[in-house]
Amino acid sequence: MNFLEEKIKAEGQVFEGNVMKIDNFLNHQVDVRIIRKIAEDIKNHFENVKVTKILTIESSGIPIATILAELYSVPMVFAKKSQTVNSTDDQYISRAYSFTHKTTNNVYVSRPYINSSDKVLIVDDFLADGEATRALIDIVHQAGAEVAGIGIAVEKGMHHTGERLRADGYRLHSVAVIQSMDPTTQTITFR
Amino acid sequence: MNFLEEKIKAEGQVFEGNVMKIDNFLNHQVDVRIIRKIAEDIKNHFENVKVTKILTIESSGIPIATILAELYSVPMVFAKKSQTVNSTDDQYISRAYSFTHKTTNNVYVSRPYINSSDKVLIVDDFLADGEATRALIDIVHQAGAEVAGIGIAVEKGMHHTGERLRADGYRLHSVAVIQSMDPTTQTITFR
Repeated sequence: MNFLEEKIKAEGQVFEGNVMKIDNFLNHQVDVRIIRKIAEDIKNHFENVKVTKILTIESSGIPIATILAELYSVPMVFAKKSQTVNSTDDQYISRAYSFTHKTTNNVYVSRPYINSSDKVLIVDDFLADGEATRALIDIVHQAGAEVAGIGIAVEKGMHHTGERLRADGYRLHSVAVIQSMDPTTQTITFR
Repeated sequence: MNFLEEKIKAEGQVFEGNVMKIDNFLNHQVDVRIIRKIAEDIKNHFENVKVTKILTIESSGIPIATILAELYSVPMVFAKKSQTVNSTDDQYISRAYSFTHKTTNNVYVSRPYINSSDKVLIVDDFLADGEATRALIDIVHQAGAEVAGIGIAVEKGMHHTGERLRADGYRLHSVAVIQSMDPTTQTITFR
């Protein structure tokens, strides 16, 4: 087991419906030591891949994206789930269903922040049904840019989203891939 | 002018209604070099102040909070604006009006992540009407914890929120304080 799998095994809580709670270090309270190790693991995996921009979606992917942007010395962009009064630029818009919020939302990125010469590393904390990741891929394509890779902290393997993304030709790296989890015994197994 | 005031003067766009757009480096596309300098400036200001936790609110404060958490070697917590299916813990709840979204929202922090022994440094990208900051202060007080300080990247001085927070006894540091801005001439002056 790697550092993240060990941390998940030690501290993750499993609930009915394939829900795993690791919000004591990943997506509510954040242990930046773990975040930095996740970012370094992703960067190491994509060695020799040219990256000009890090793209994530608000909010939980932002800490990992922040550290990765610093490691690559490139800008980070976080896609927004709502428009604000100062969204004055033209925007790329895609749509994603949120497993955690049970709603379908628009996803926005202002056009100036991704352009056709960009090699974009898409980053997120979780990959489950892949809705958010697919929306980010769609936005990169709308911009005429290239998806350099997809870096994920925790992939829920039971959704088989990773296989589909790889079959579609995307380079995907997940630091931890959950094979199965059992709320009765609180057992989490990794691929 | 310091580094942030120079950056704002060079790249900020001013719109009617005291709206300033610096989302090319602060709150949509993020220049992590600037974010690190903001975090270092805040930490330098609060020298000799004990901090056990960094608290911000999703989403734009998260990059600064991430770097600050690493500088202090303490956990970061970001308050949430909605509940998710895995919000199973009891929560502190406060309310804040959002100037950018024109709605009043609940603000949530799971109780395990702030406790009565915490010295909390509250961090955000903008201070305008102070609604989000007041909600975070309220949550720290609900937890019986102490507000060690409030660190802000850009304070809009015309709202006079900073004066009120200082009058209430809070240690507040804003890296840049905007005195006035003029959409006609695109002039931004700093305090």
